[in-house]
Amino acid sequence: MADSISFSRGAPSADIVDIEGLKQAAVRAFENDPAGVAGYGTAVGYVPLRRHIAAKHGVPEDHVLVTNGSMQADAFLFDEVVERGDTVVVERPTYDRTLLGLTERGADVHLIGLQEDGIDVDELEAALKNGLRPKLAHVIPNFQNPGGSTLSLEKRRRLLALAAEHDFLIFEDDPYVDVRFSGEPLPRMLELDAPGESNTPTNVVYACSFSKTVCPGVRVGYLVGNPQLIARIQRRATNTYISPSQVSQAIVHEFVSGDRYEAALENVKRALGERADTLAAALREHLPQATFVKPEGGYFLWVSLPEGEGHDCARIAEEAAARGVQIVKGTDFLVEGGENAFRLAYSAVTADRIDEGVRRLAEAVEAAKA
Amino acid sequence: MADSISFSRGAPSADIVDIEGLKQAAVRAFENDPAGVAGYGTAVGYVPLRRHIAAKHGVPEDHVLVTNGSMQADAFLFDEVVERGDTVVVERPTYDRTLLGLTERGADVHLIGLQEDGIDVDELEAALKNGLRPKLAHVIPNFQNPGGSTLSLEKRRRLLALAAEHDFLIFEDDPYVDVRFSGEPLPRMLELDAPGESNTPTNVVYACSFSKTVCPGVRVGYLVGNPQLIARIQRRATNTYISPSQVSQAIVHEFVSGDRYEAALENVKRALGERADTLAAALREHLPQATFVKPEGGYFLWVSLPEGEGHDCARIAEEAAARGVQIVKGTDFLVEGGENAFRLAYSAVTADRIDEGVRRLAEAVEAAKA
Repeated sequence: MADSISFSRGAPSADIVDIEGLKQAAVRAFENDPAGVAGYGTAVGYVPLRRHIAAKHGVPEDHVLVTNGSMQADAFLFDEVVERGDTVVVERPTYDRTLLGLTERGADVHLIGLQEDGIDVDELEAALKNGLRPKLAHVIPNFQNPGGSTLSLEKRRRLLALAAEHDFLIFEDDPYVDVRFSGEPLPRMLELDAPGESNTPTNVVYACSFSKTVCPGVRVGYLVGNPQLIARIQRRATNTYISPSQVSQAIVHEFVSGDRYEAALENVKRALGERADTLAAALREHLPQATFVKPEGGYFLWVSLPEGEGHDCARIAEEAAARGVQIVKGTDFLVEGGENAFRLAYSAVTADRIDEGVRRLAEAVEAAKA
Repeated sequence: MADSISFSRGAPSADIVDIEGLKQAAVRAFENDPAGVAGYGTAVGYVPLRRHIAAKHGVPEDHVLVTNGSMQADAFLFDEVVERGDTVVVERPTYDRTLLGLTERGADVHLIGLQEDGIDVDELEAALKNGLRPKLAHVIPNFQNPGGSTLSLEKRRRLLALAAEHDFLIFEDDPYVDVRFSGEPLPRMLELDAPGESNTPTNVVYACSFSKTVCPGVRVGYLVGNPQLIARIQRRATNTYISPSQVSQAIVHEFVSGDRYEAALENVKRALGERADTLAAALREHLPQATFVKPEGGYFLWVSLPEGEGHDCARIAEEAAARGVQIVKGTDFLVEGGENAFRLAYSAVTADRIDEGVRRLAEAVEAAKA
């Protein structure tokens, strides 16, 4: 089999992680705060990192809970908020692990289409008018996984208005926000929901992660939200693990506070931007029949083949694998449909391998037709 | 108020953590395995640490799952095994967080007395004969928290026979095993349950932690058990957090594999042994009416005052706090009873402060009577 080229996993390649910077951050963590790093700490997370995050978002510290990765934060939030039978809105397509986490908890998942500028707010509004009563709406506003699209400012405002009117919580799941490589950043719904002096959101709980800006192996993510909700989740976290890794969180704190961070993050964004450009160019060349939204950041590009031609992403994935290329089939991100689509992650493929990967993928698409 | 002396928290004082060794281990982790440390990894834990643990216990790697602290391991195990209404046996008294974790999951908790040589197996046997049908029995075999007692070899064998006969799972919760400072180590029930070539236990699942041998802030613990059960828990872990902190686990791996570890662990045991001796001597001097089992390892000493004298641990704890001394009241570790008892953790109090702490505590016991 040909050498492997993986477009499947949403993870950075090792060459864009600042290992030297992390090593130095670890040394500083043990030197600067030995008792804090070695001790249990509490479920709120490593206190200096929590403070750093609160300052970044302009909120009081009691709005923030730092966890072992943001998926753990999602799990705590779902355990706290979602009861069996509750309606939860998600994007169509959406992150496969979110879908699984919700269905395993017995949520009644309602999918709303994703457009080039994010979730279809008209479709959501119509569903609400028709009696849909969601408790939670899960939205990935920036460089959506798997869709790659970014929610427009107008839609952010409309979503907030709908949440206020119909009394549901928006779960703004935003791990990619800081790896934007083109276009202009948009305000978070978290901020738009809390214009007053307290900065306390009413209808938004926000999750973010250091996996994309530092590295996944630290497993550090966080929630920002209403302090009453955060306190309830903190209690749950205490009863689950006492406290998250103080060592990991202290290293992250030293890294993001250190003088190498800005350059390290610029390097990540430059590499991701180059990979996204190369991937888009290769798709236009080798798979001209495919359509996709070129993302302004993040890790993913969602590729659709023309409908009605009998494309089957499972067969395409198999044929691609036979050529040493891994992709994730579109059906994994949907409850139904997606047979003509697949997700390509460009985060882990260096630019010099992308063209070759797409060339083989185009062969696989042809082979899967036969 | 007088300067504070805390006998309340089961955590090591900073002076017995080898911060320099941890710092060097962190540097080695980033240098030796940059891709492994920075990447996601999987829910089984950091692979070299998992391998190290498997070798330590003489089991195949698929028997081991490394988690973000052993309480997270407990939580996964309870979620997997304990359903609402299931009977679970625990020791009386037992670790307060275990009790909470079980009652929150709706378990029907059945307490069996703790003796100087561990859980009262006669009482358990009689209860089983009377129809008790536990799914799980939670036992802390070494230097029990809060009781301080260690399960004898004979009782280990009898417990295993009862588990085989009545088809329940023994949860051998063993975080303190490696901080034994006197007496001889006893074989684990995990080993006694798996005498064959496969080393696969039938009725035991085992949990341990690096909090006591390395430091709590790493939040690294693990489970060892039947690979079918481990695989089910692995799936649960994947869906909760993808993977535990690779950074933390790689640092632990380098630390426990490094050439400073043996001396660091000896230093911890020496300090704990000295603190336990000092505490026992101080109790004999200042609180001669108290009874306790002097532990052979671990962090805790369980103090009982004579019954029938109207002692109230809540009042004692209050009076102690007014004198700057923190203790945990006996009632926290029991469903009922324990008013005449309290737990003293000597892990965090340096030997030179212990006598003064107990002197004040004796005053508090007197004041609480009035």
